[in-house]
Amino acid sequence: MEALDYHAEERRKAEFDLEEMKIVWAGSRQNYEISDRMARLVASDPVFRKDNRTMLSRKDLFKDTLRKAAHAWKRIIELRLSEEEAHMLRSYVDQPAFTDLHWGMFIPAIKGQGTEEQHEKWLPMAYKMQIIGCYAQTELGHGSNVQGLETTATFDPQTDEFVIHSPTLTSSKWWPGGLGKVSTHAVVYARLITGAQDHGVHGFIVQLRSLDDHSPLPGITVGDIGMKFGSGAYNSMDNGLLRFDHVRIPRNQMLMRVSQVTREGKFVQSDVPRQLVYGTMVYVRQTIVSDASCALARAVCIATRYSAVRRQFGSQNGGPETQVIDYKTQQSRLFPLLASAYAFRFVGEWLKWLYTDVTQRLQASDFSTLPEAHACTAGLKSMTTSVTADAIEECRKLCGGHGYLSNSGLPELFAVYIPTCTYEGDNVVLLLQVARFLMKTVSQLGSGKKPVGTTAYMGRAEHLMQCRCEVERAEDWLKPSVILEAFEARAFRMSIACAKNLSKFSNPEDGFSELSPDLLEAAIAHCQLIVVSKYIEKLQQDIPGKGVKRQLEILCNVYALHLLHKHLGDFVTTSCITPKQGALANEQLRLLYSQMHSITPTTTLARSSVAIMETSIKGSMRKHGRIL
Amino acid sequence: MEALDYHAEERRKAEFDLEEMKIVWAGSRQNYEISDRMARLVASDPVFRKDNRTMLSRKDLFKDTLRKAAHAWKRIIELRLSEEEAHMLRSYVDQPAFTDLHWGMFIPAIKGQGTEEQHEKWLPMAYKMQIIGCYAQTELGHGSNVQGLETTATFDPQTDEFVIHSPTLTSSKWWPGGLGKVSTHAVVYARLITGAQDHGVHGFIVQLRSLDDHSPLPGITVGDIGMKFGSGAYNSMDNGLLRFDHVRIPRNQMLMRVSQVTREGKFVQSDVPRQLVYGTMVYVRQTIVSDASCALARAVCIATRYSAVRRQFGSQNGGPETQVIDYKTQQSRLFPLLASAYAFRFVGEWLKWLYTDVTQRLQASDFSTLPEAHACTAGLKSMTTSVTADAIEECRKLCGGHGYLSNSGLPELFAVYIPTCTYEGDNVVLLLQVARFLMKTVSQLGSGKKPVGTTAYMGRAEHLMQCRCEVERAEDWLKPSVILEAFEARAFRMSIACAKNLSKFSNPEDGFSELSPDLLEAAIAHCQLIVVSKYIEKLQQDIPGKGVKRQLEILCNVYALHLLHKHLGDFVTTSCITPKQGALANEQLRLLYSQMHSITPTTTLARSSVAIMETSIKGSMRKHGRIL
Repeated sequence: MEALDYHAEERRKAEFDLEEMKIVWAGSRQNYEISDRMARLVASDPVFRKDNRTMLSRKDLFKDTLRKAAHAWKRIIELRLSEEEAHMLRSYVDQPAFTDLHWGMFIPAIKGQGTEEQHEKWLPMAYKMQIIGCYAQTELGHGSNVQGLETTATFDPQTDEFVIHSPTLTSSKWWPGGLGKVSTHAVVYARLITGAQDHGVHGFIVQLRSLDDHSPLPGITVGDIGMKFGSGAYNSMDNGLLRFDHVRIPRNQMLMRVSQVTREGKFVQSDVPRQLVYGTMVYVRQTIVSDASCALARAVCIATRYSAVRRQFGSQNGGPETQVIDYKTQQSRLFPLLASAYAFRFVGEWLKWLYTDVTQRLQASDFSTLPEAHACTAGLKSMTTSVTADAIEECRKLCGGHGYLSNSGLPELFAVYIPTCTYEGDNVVLLLQVARFLMKTVSQLGSGKKPVGTTAYMGRAEHLMQCRCEVERAEDWLKPSVILEAFEARAFRMSIACAKNLSKFSNPEDGFSELSPDLLEAAIAHCQLIVVSKYIEKLQQDIPGKGVKRQLEILCNVYALHLLHKHLGDFVTTSCITPKQGALANEQLRLLYSQMHSITPTTTLARSSVAIMETSIKGSMRKHGRIL
Repeated sequence: MEALDYHAEERRKAEFDLEEMKIVWAGSRQNYEISDRMARLVASDPVFRKDNRTMLSRKDLFKDTLRKAAHAWKRIIELRLSEEEAHMLRSYVDQPAFTDLHWGMFIPAIKGQGTEEQHEKWLPMAYKMQIIGCYAQTELGHGSNVQGLETTATFDPQTDEFVIHSPTLTSSKWWPGGLGKVSTHAVVYARLITGAQDHGVHGFIVQLRSLDDHSPLPGITVGDIGMKFGSGAYNSMDNGLLRFDHVRIPRNQMLMRVSQVTREGKFVQSDVPRQLVYGTMVYVRQTIVSDASCALARAVCIATRYSAVRRQFGSQNGGPETQVIDYKTQQSRLFPLLASAYAFRFVGEWLKWLYTDVTQRLQASDFSTLPEAHACTAGLKSMTTSVTADAIEECRKLCGGHGYLSNSGLPELFAVYIPTCTYEGDNVVLLLQVARFLMKTVSQLGSGKKPVGTTAYMGRAEHLMQCRCEVERAEDWLKPSVILEAFEARAFRMSIACAKNLSKFSNPEDGFSELSPDLLEAAIAHCQLIVVSKYIEKLQQDIPGKGVKRQLEILCNVYALHLLHKHLGDFVTTSCITPKQGALANEQLRLLYSQMHSITPTTTLARSSVAIMETSIKGSMRKHGRIL
């Protein structure tokens, strides 16, 4: 086949402006510069060294974490870093610490759910770290189902206090970071009980340990829940357990912005709309998606470097062996992950816009787009984190035996990343929420209520049920419109098939439960469509820099076509494409791998794509993660 | 739907003889009893405790391992355990140690490749552990490609010695277990050079450390390669690096059973057929497949227990929440893994038979079945270990947040298991070997050379290209003949499609390289067919015990139909089944989950299937691995 000429032309076309590509990844020149500066700061500071982290006993690891957290805090003050810079610095320190919860959960909970009075009392102490707090929600028996929490906060009108109590073993608080050894205070979530009435779960500020000698206060049992996955990873965090034996707190320690309990014990719901919490949720999930792209980029960077250096087999006449990146089997596993990193990056960027949009609407009391935004962020959080977790492990395997060494950086990256699939909504539970929303949307089609946002495509129901893919040659698969229609038709037809099967059940809930594995698949198809469509939208923008857009187009096609190949059964059984068209897509995918790979004989694309990501991971890589 | 009556009948049908099911799992009553006895022995001995393993620093973990290895050795002698019992005891101690390599690689290498004279000199010292040895093959730059090793052993006729040398950085020995801190000796693989001629890689016995003070001998650089995945896992092992600076050993330390170097420096190849090594290879891979079923069973056991205890959501009128095993999403992820454990168990059992068969043929100098046996064992090693590695992580996710705690037993099980995907043949490299064999088999069809063993089905080429699946109702998918034909047709048509595409390339090697991702998929289809067909064969045997066979049939159908659903694209695009038949298979699969689950409301099947496996894991579970 005329591979060689083709490669030469590709190589010429593929030269591109590396600097601009770095900026595309970072989102803006300013982001890129801050990121680069903070990375250098962390990499050049011996206190932040990471090379011995996996060798330490649990105790020494924990001490090392305390030292780093204190040092980061000191540097942030000394250098007068902005909030954004401080955040970036901490992310390059890359060692989970109690401060994550203090700054990321305890303070925001008081800010968001506390009254002005409570802000004045608690925040100054928290900002100066005179008190250190954690976020005590999850219990041994209750994670995803927050409404099932068992800890009680019973109002005692005689003393004007709440009595916080753990009535069962399963009601023990379990998991909160910072709780096991460090926190002096916690925001505790408990069932509010006044008289004999249960008002559901609310937040309370509770002191746990003495400010004099750090010993637990009377009635409080507190400790560390033990080792977690990996040797470093989250073992630097003191995830804890906590039990209350009728612990009394003053009434004004209930967080009373949204609901109050009066001196008389009357429960009052304020008129602050509860939907406001959804704004925060969109924000948090946007951060998680953006973090997914970073974690994936780190893993892909390590695996690509390894693949460009490692040689194995294929020596001819005693010459050097073949670089493993030259193997199609390596390319077909690695390149889709590189493409996914960009895809997640861009959908994360779009989520930032969505957050602004939702916030503005909430301020104008427009709740109309909330259900769609909720479903969309739930789905994207679930999909991107699940893919990233698996991809890190795949990258580890792509490094052969060397990936198994802690020095490769991959085992610890995996161990520290995977909890993301569970926290802020278990990934399966979230996908079921997406599925529920899809079924609702389908049921309302034709009722005059138009589907909005990322479900707008469902408004073209008739077209999507009838359209036939028109691909006749492999290169037809490069047209964005062709890809988009195939993904829309597949997602829509899978939702319709689920709805049809659901309608056979007399009890819809039984049906939903029985068909839930199929519903998960329909939800995934919908989420993949979102990512593909946002990537295509991104490419419709003006992207400066010679050749940058062309590189991103190749990656976009790789992303879409590898999904199509992976889920071929979906596309073919819904008659969105024919088996022949599936084979053409696979053929085109192979050509794209060659394009990515052939740009120069020493794989400049892989190396420069990596260089781009590298800018965002220098901090962690300089001290850690070189192999061979 | 009339679920309830159906369940009641199923429940009655599903009572079964637990004791017999345990014996089916163990392979024989004797195996079961030995396993149970050794498990109790380990569980009741405080030296073998595992509860603090993940908390230790690397140094303390290593000391703990030395203590356990010495204690195990002592107990084996005191109790005069048989080789089988000793093996079982060590597997329950479940902590990788230098002894694994001393007994499992160093001694067998001398036994297999050494002369009578060498046996007499080295084995007595090794048996008494007066010397401790490791197996130094892998180098920093050379793993899968053993022929690429760079270490040299140059014969010096003047002194009658070999000079062992590491000429490059990449030639450093890297990974050998037991090398880093413990071994006094190693079997070193190096390129034999006599005169100016390179005779390829051979084994040499080299002393590394002084028997007086354990310091490295002159010219030897040796050390530990550092931390590996997990906190315990293989960190109890001193995987090491080793460099030689012109180290001299006497000529009689080359392992000379198969080839010799004479006093004059003449290289002589003996007439021992090289194919004999394949016998060992079949044996080792059979062990790996059998171990895969055990590791998978441990993970499934933990996840099933968790699922039967954990409740989340679905509380009605304040009653208890729903057991998570009641969720179809949980069942559809967990039950196929339970089924896979049995499937791998049975194919591992069959591999034992294959080993006996191959050995007998080799003794009669019949090498005719070797290529097929080689491809088959390579594929099964690859497929079962890849699935098991992913399945352990899936089981961890099925335990929600709790799976992330070391106490669940799953993080360490994952970390200690995954190297299996790399050692004894990288899983991708092995699948490519299978693909090569399949392409060769296809190319010889019609030449009169009949495909044998697990490729015999390819002899029915015409039928398999034309047959159409006759499934009309979901229950038709319960017929073994229907399942078998669908898997055979799919595997065969995928191989034929690859062969057709390969023929378009003028250079077959270019084609093989370009199409390797498709070839991997064809190889996987072939391997899955082997597992399905061996499970179906097992069910044609007489299996005693009330209801036992019925349980195994359900599991067999779950195994096959979950694969069919997962690879639906393969089956439909090759026209082996229609989309409608795919949907019916999925419907039948859901019914099978209900059957597995409905046997009693408290999921006796799941629990008792687990009980069976539990017998084989008591040793490790008693001290470790209970959550909630």
